[in-house]
Amino acid sequence: MLSCHTSTVEKKQGIRSDKLNPLPSWNNNDVKSAIINFVENATEEGNSNFIPESDRIACFDNDGTLWAEQPMYFQLIYAIDFIKKEAHKHPEWSKQEPFKSILQNDLEQALKGGNRALMEIIMASHAGISTAEFDKSVKNWLESRKHPKYNKPYNQLIYQPMIELLDYLRSHQFKCFIVSGGGVDFIRNFSEETYNIPKHQVIGSSLKVVYEIDSLGMPVLIKKAEINHIDDGLGKPVGVHQYIGKKPVFSAGNSDGDYELLAYTKSSKNENGFAIIIHHTDAEREFAYDRESHIGKLKRAMDDAPEKGWYLVDMAKDWNIIFEFNF
Amino acid sequence: MLSCHTSTVEKKQGIRSDKLNPLPSWNNNDVKSAIINFVENATEEGNSNFIPESDRIACFDNDGTLWAEQPMYFQLIYAIDFIKKEAHKHPEWSKQEPFKSILQNDLEQALKGGNRALMEIIMASHAGISTAEFDKSVKNWLESRKHPKYNKPYNQLIYQPMIELLDYLRSHQFKCFIVSGGGVDFIRNFSEETYNIPKHQVIGSSLKVVYEIDSLGMPVLIKKAEINHIDDGLGKPVGVHQYIGKKPVFSAGNSDGDYELLAYTKSSKNENGFAIIIHHTDAEREFAYDRESHIGKLKRAMDDAPEKGWYLVDMAKDWNIIFEFNF
Repeated sequence: MLSCHTSTVEKKQGIRSDKLNPLPSWNNNDVKSAIINFVENATEEGNSNFIPESDRIACFDNDGTLWAEQPMYFQLIYAIDFIKKEAHKHPEWSKQEPFKSILQNDLEQALKGGNRALMEIIMASHAGISTAEFDKSVKNWLESRKHPKYNKPYNQLIYQPMIELLDYLRSHQFKCFIVSGGGVDFIRNFSEETYNIPKHQVIGSSLKVVYEIDSLGMPVLIKKAEINHIDDGLGKPVGVHQYIGKKPVFSAGNSDGDYELLAYTKSSKNENGFAIIIHHTDAEREFAYDRESHIGKLKRAMDDAPEKGWYLVDMAKDWNIIFEFNF
Repeated sequence: MLSCHTSTVEKKQGIRSDKLNPLPSWNNNDVKSAIINFVENATEEGNSNFIPESDRIACFDNDGTLWAEQPMYFQLIYAIDFIKKEAHKHPEWSKQEPFKSILQNDLEQALKGGNRALMEIIMASHAGISTAEFDKSVKNWLESRKHPKYNKPYNQLIYQPMIELLDYLRSHQFKCFIVSGGGVDFIRNFSEETYNIPKHQVIGSSLKVVYEIDSLGMPVLIKKAEINHIDDGLGKPVGVHQYIGKKPVFSAGNSDGDYELLAYTKSSKNENGFAIIIHHTDAEREFAYDRESHIGKLKRAMDDAPEKGWYLVDMAKDWNIIFEFNF
């Protein structure tokens, strides 16, 4: 682990990368070599593993792959904050789970309702408002709230080695997409400035929206409390097909929710394509969790990785820094 | 109208365009001046109508806007051909409308069932097969079938002035998307080579797909007979939001099905943004239709165009050629 020796002002995204040393935050272990080898073959005309530019599609999960996801999904923190802020407009919440427990700061109780409770919490933070109002609310939240462990805005909790990987792939004409179980409208509020990934290259879970004309005669899109797409597990290759229309040649995930995305990219050792799994092994610099975790559970994908030819990234061993701010 | 004086081999897409004369197939009328004026202002830093690069989103309808749609939507012709070809696997179709009438070559009768019949025809040509099989079938069809009026493959029935417009916008860092009522999987089979629009920049109607593992253990996506999204009318701004996440600054359509897309782009004369409507006025070189047409009906959008500030493109007067092959 390197000590902090440069000012944060100088540390713009990817500034440590250059052509001679494309992934400086990655230690010179097997995974780094394999990534570079894959990209060099894919971009060398005449190579048997050459991939034409228009097929260089790379897909990245977001929570736990590009940014942190502990102590809980950041979007869930946003939703809880939203519910507390808006509770005065919803007197019924004080008697109705999961809202009642949230307002009593008893998250464990609130989440006892499982996926349904989680979905109700997330939906309450979306539904019935215009897409523009939602964007404003998320932007305000990102600017004002900080992560409990690091005391940094949530959009600084991004993995520097992955930022370098995005840059490296893009410099070889790969088109990088986010394919996240999180809400697409949530992620699009920071994807451009944080990852240099334009909004239309973000795929995620979504609610239905409807087109309406507001009181000033202007078109608005209103978010409804009805699911449009759940971009998790089996839903990830479905989202990739509906939004991109091509099979990825590169993908990165960190949990069993990414299993089908990884398999769609590389379903066996012998198949072309490249897939990595970020394994959270660094309790000191970040968080250590896998098989038993409630968030980002990694079991089946880790067990099948050798047979599938997916690379496990050991955060503690393979990354010499994790966040830009802890050089 | 110019006569045919260059070989078709030389006439690659956009080859007639250059920086000094960006839209050569457009006559020097008001619409051409307005387009050039809009683009020059949008790309001039300091101009009050300057648009940052990342916001330069342009949306194009497909049927009747980028390629022809008469005597009927080309995808409907594909679906009818598919039903005839596959009828031997579906003995039940000989007794079941709308298939029965299609097999008896009575399209008028088949379509008497309205939208439901149309949807059943389109779905029959999609559902239950893998996305890869569907792609193969569409590619074969495009290579083998020709338009009844022009005796050309359907993907040559594209409007040369619109190809130039796409090129012109792209050369000014606009990102061009297709936003079509047609099937997204259908259009993606020719969008890259025909329009230079990558698959992930095509938005259209879609069926649900599900992820499955085939008998060889490989992941496949199977198309289901269940609607995912209808990208027409009110559905167009919804599709734009779900796929792009930004409001367009430029859009082009040709029918009332594009009304909401145009309004979402420019909802009043005073608003920034630019919208055009292709008005099919040229019975000799193409087809002439608007208010009363069953396909590409243009009534409400034409009536409201002056108040909204949308430009009508008069194909007969504003375009000196329509298709590349009739220079």
